Amino acid sequence: MVKSSKKPGYKKTASTASKPQPSAAAGDDITVTALQLPPAPLSPDMTAYFAKCEEKLGFVPNVLKAYAFDMAKLSAFIAVYNDLMLAPSGLSKLEREMIAVAVSAHNRCYYCLVAHGATVRQLSGDPRLGELMAMNYRAARLSKRHRAMLDFAVKLTAEPWLVEDEDRERVRKAGFGDRDIWDIAAVAGFFNMTNRVASATDMRPNSVYHGQSR
Amino acid sequence: MVKSSKKPGYKKTASTASKPQPSAAAGDDITVTALQLPPAPLSPDMTAYFAKCEEKLGFVPNVLKAYAFDMAKLSAFIAVYNDLMLAPSGLSKLEREMIAVAVSAHNRCYYCLVAHGATVRQLSGDPRLGELMAMNYRAARLSKRHRAMLDFAVKLTAEPWLVEDEDRERVRKAGFGDRDIWDIAAVAGFFNMTNRVASATDMRPNSVYHGQSR
Amino acid sequence: MVKSSKKPGYKKTASTASKPQPSAAAGDDITVTALQLPPAPLSPDMTAYFAKCEEKLGFVPNVLKAYAFDMAKLSAFIAVYNDLMLAPSGLSKLEREMIAVAVSAHNRCYYCLVAHGATVRQLSGDPRLGELMAMNYRAARLSKRHRAMLDFAVKLTAEPWLVEDEDRERVRKAGFGDRDIWDIAAVAGFFNMTNRVASATDMRPNSVYHGQSR
Amino acid sequence: MVKSSKKPGYKKTASTASKPQPSAAAGDDITVTALQLPPAPLSPDMTAYFAKCEEKLGFVPNVLKAYAFDMAKLSAFIAVYNDLMLAPSGLSKLEREMIAVAVSAHNRCYYCLVAHGATVRQLSGDPRLGELMAMNYRAARLSKRHRAMLDFAVKLTAEPWLVEDEDRERVRKAGFGDRDIWDIAAVAGFFNMTNRVASATDMRPNSVYHGQSR
Amino acid sequence: MVKSSKKPGYKKTASTASKPQPSAAAGDDITVTALQLPPAPLSPDMTAYFAKCEEKLGFVPNVLKAYAFDMAKLSAFIAVYNDLMLAPSGLSKLEREMIAVAVSAHNRCYYCLVAHGATVRQLSGDPRLGELMAMNYRAARLSKRHRAMLDFAVKLTAEPWLVEDEDRERVRKAGFGDRDIWDIAAVAGFFNMTNRVASATDMRPNSVYHGQSR
Amino acid sequence: MVKSSKKPGYKKTASTASKPQPSAAAGDDITVTALQLPPAPLSPDMTAYFAKCEEKLGFVPNVLKAYAFDMAKLSAFIAVYNDLMLAPSGLSKLEREMIAVAVSAHNRCYYCLVAHGATVRQLSGDPRLGELMAMNYRAARLSKRHRAMLDFAVKLTAEPWLVEDEDRERVRKAGFGDRDIWDIAAVAGFFNMTNRVASATDMRPNSVYHGQSR
Repeated sequence: MVKSSKKPGYKKTASTASKPQPSAAAGDDITVTALQLPPAPLSPDMTAYFAKCEEKLGFVPNVLKAYAFDMAKLSAFIAVYNDLMLAPSGLSKLEREMIAVAVSAHNRCYYCLVAHGATVRQLSGDPRLGELMAMNYRAARLSKRHRAMLDFAVKLTAEPWLVEDEDRERVRKAGFGDRDIWDIAAVAGFFNMTNRVASATDMRPNSVYHGQSR
Repeated sequence: MVKSSKKPGYKKTASTASKPQPSAAAGDDITVTALQLPPAPLSPDMTAYFAKCEEKLGFVPNVLKAYAFDMAKLSAFIAVYNDLMLAPSGLSKLEREMIAVAVSAHNRCYYCLVAHGATVRQLSGDPRLGELMAMNYRAARLSKRHRAMLDFAVKLTAEPWLVEDEDRERVRKAGFGDRDIWDIAAVAGFFNMTNRVASATDMRPNSVYHGQSR
Repeated sequence: MVKSSKKPGYKKTASTASKPQPSAAAGDDITVTALQLPPAPLSPDMTAYFAKCEEKLGFVPNVLKAYAFDMAKLSAFIAVYNDLMLAPSGLSKLEREMIAVAVSAHNRCYYCLVAHGATVRQLSGDPRLGELMAMNYRAARLSKRHRAMLDFAVKLTAEPWLVEDEDRERVRKAGFGDRDIWDIAAVAGFFNMTNRVASATDMRPNSVYHGQSR
Repeated sequence: MVKSSKKPGYKKTASTASKPQPSAAAGDDITVTALQLPPAPLSPDMTAYFAKCEEKLGFVPNVLKAYAFDMAKLSAFIAVYNDLMLAPSGLSKLEREMIAVAVSAHNRCYYCLVAHGATVRQLSGDPRLGELMAMNYRAARLSKRHRAMLDFAVKLTAEPWLVEDEDRERVRKAGFGDRDIWDIAAVAGFFNMTNRVASATDMRPNSVYHGQSR
Repeated sequence: MVKSSKKPGYKKTASTASKPQPSAAAGDDITVTALQLPPAPLSPDMTAYFAKCEEKLGFVPNVLKAYAFDMAKLSAFIAVYNDLMLAPSGLSKLEREMIAVAVSAHNRCYYCLVAHGATVRQLSGDPRLGELMAMNYRAARLSKRHRAMLDFAVKLTAEPWLVEDEDRERVRKAGFGDRDIWDIAAVAGFFNMTNRVASATDMRPNSVYHGQSR
Repeated sequence: MVKSSKKPGYKKTASTASKPQPSAAAGDDITVTALQLPPAPLSPDMTAYFAKCEEKLGFVPNVLKAYAFDMAKLSAFIAVYNDLMLAPSGLSKLEREMIAVAVSAHNRCYYCLVAHGATVRQLSGDPRLGELMAMNYRAARLSKRHRAMLDFAVKLTAEPWLVEDEDRERVRKAGFGDRDIWDIAAVAGFFNMTNRVASATDMRPNSVYHGQSR
């Protein structure tokens, strides 16, 4: 807010020396994780895939660079990821990304919030939706369908041992079929995995995500 | 990520009908809270203050509109706020805003994360710092000073009953004096108040914040 | 309970040396907080206000002494406090104090439990009500109105991010209007602030409170 | 606090109809629990024990009345209780009562906080010590011995699965022997039992406790 | 699972040196707790009782050996235990053991899970029931009666301060009487005690339990 | 324990009608999840893989049947799983299974505790080690290496947002390299995924696991 003119003037704060470092996220595009894992030579498949990322996205997502110390792990990760997030499903791609961000918000995962928050903004064309998913999905004006979907995903994230038939029923009542329930669970489960790999390794998101689709 | 060319093509997702509403935050600039509290006539002081906000910020922050049903509450709120966030202190204004956002992140307060996240981006000139405070301050590359400051503020937020002499000592060792400890506590305390007023009333942030200083 | 005569006698416990210190709360009336913040000269207004406290209460509440290092902060605190707790409201003063104590019980704040517990005992003329608020408000025989009021205030304290329309509806159904909801939230919010300032500074309550209205 | 003379007068609060019930703890001396369990005829031993309670305490503690539906359970409870709290031990009786109250505070058990809070006040001759144990033992000015004792008891209460060798070592370093560790654990364990029996049955403390040793 | 033949062969893992110790539970039958508490001479009653254990069970449960440093504590423990778990009750012995295990699972108590898990397997003749109680009772196919019984016992374990009339009503609706509610609470309470004594002392279960009734 | 001969005889408990169902886990081998997802025709690869499971294990793990509604998901799951749990690593296969069980214990996942508990028993030849991992790994007599490994995996499971450099340092000090840290994180992450898919779908373990390697 602004300073009221009723208030007496005050001297400049003395603590100018205590500003944050030039950038609190400096180096995010250079050092991808806190682990020293030298990249393996890219296989031909992976060379082609990275080239495709550069062409379509303009960059290679840091998570792929993080996995690139081992071609088997890298390609298995991509196979699961693309099946989950891009293959046909009763859930739209945006819905899957909304789950990704709501789960990552529960787990306070910097990498996934930045990368998938950008995707929600882009797929929805609604920058505020990305912020809401990352901050508190309960504050968003969601359809009954989306609210049920995210409530299920977040309960599964926070207290999986409490998920039972009545939770599945609640999602079914919001219009989801059994295959959709699998997909919600699979996406929520996947980000519970990847949030933890990212936190364990201090994975840093490409800085380009921050300004996308604002 | 991008679709691997190894994967067979797939049909367009059927669930196009299930996109989120045109905007998940629609109306945030019109209906400020979920409570029906008709605004009181602005006092001369408050008229002047709102005009100053329009002039300097280009808008009146919604939190002020939310309090405007009662002039005594509105002016008391502004007095406390401005003393806390703008008056001279051993903490820079940016530091106070960093505390505001880290506390609001713990409390997952949509209003405060949006409004004060924007201020951190603006004061720091580092858009990523705002994101880091809102997502997980532990992932930021902070100075020892800032880390100690936020650890104290967030512990005070999460488990105030556990704060003791050794917590104060830790902050002192990072270079803060007793007056600074008061200010950290006062800012953290204030946002624990305002986060709750915002959540209790479903307070909506001005939409202009979202794009600021990205 | 008493020793059963069935049990054989036993020698006096050896650990007489390990009693607590002469008083576990010694010095509470002398050293008000753990911070070294020399009092500022009282302004004329504040001199008058402190005198009024002495006259009406017989003492100056330690929280005011804690804020007395800075006249702007002291008077802003008093303005907010008195508006909140004493100004006209759909909530009685006792109700506002019940919220204060139930919130402080969640946060296990020694200062506020002692000071406001005494006020509940005094305003209600029911010493046990003060104890119940401080120990577990759910064990009190409360009206539907008071139960709904405290459930809202305590949920807002414990998990503000979960408060939504249905919580507001529940309070409305117990007879509260929108202005009342604001007041419940504002009082609960305020004590979430002041509990944290008290815990951060190890604020000690005036010892006179302990015996009041028992 | 008191109303500042600077503030404009205000009308009497309208909500006089919404005071709490005549007493929020009415009937505590009549209906001891929420369960309908008709008392069994007292055995001769128990008749004598109840008489002794009346003689020494002036009343029979409600917990005994609660167990009096079954003589085997009543006398087993008394045997364990008296062994634990009154038999010779490296812990003084006051120390055992301090554990009782600190554990009951974690569990927010109304019955035990009232009954054993009174005992702490009485045995210590320090009314504030009882309050501190019931509100937040961390705010008390405790000896190193007492702090270690209560930290162990409360961790054991809150997260027993985390108690390990290093916790036992910390207590040993504060001067406790292995037999003392057993006794701390046994008292903490016992109140974790009795807190739950009291909460499960809504056990009400004799109202006489409230005013004792203030 | 098995290795897919599609995958290239790989060398034997190098870390053969990092296997767990010969037995992760070695010595459980020798050193019963982490406390040095020399056994007292067994009283004639206790000598007879231990002999009876040897005769009927083939061994003396370690918990009895743990208490055997003091005959008064040992016999009081046995009296309470046998009254609770073996005396006539509206709850079958198996039901009481199911409560014991579900409570011990919440508290992650190694001793009680091993010893009472074995009893559930034995009394039910259903080895999987013991596992379900120890892992997550919500995953068991329970009758409405047993589900209500365990929900009450586990809520009482996890958050006793939240147990209220509606919880008691829910158990009553599942067919339990007030005396049964007492017994559920008493068994749940008892294991909340004994779980903590076991965790505080690192009590080790007799190794014979592991293979029983599998 | 056994009934003391001191106690009077008592009639047979009346509640024989309230035993658990014939088997609390009946049907686990028939209905694999709570979702109706008809199996897809097995691809040739998967036909071969299932045959290999039958040959080597004697059965097809239910998790594979659960994924068998979609060949792409099934084979991607197997690829990730086998790479993670069976490929060369600085962690032995047993160590990876210990992580699997300790993570699943935190998440109280019935499927994974049963299936991977059996594997820990089998690979270690120490039935008690499987129980300890499933009940409370802190109670096991672990090497410093294994304790550090599991502490990291379980913290990452419980509060991934708190994992930082000092956590990685602690694991390094126990002898793990950066590649090992990745593997610990990847296994812990994977079971955080699969625990949630299992809980979301009520996945049931093959009953044969229960008796294996006891």
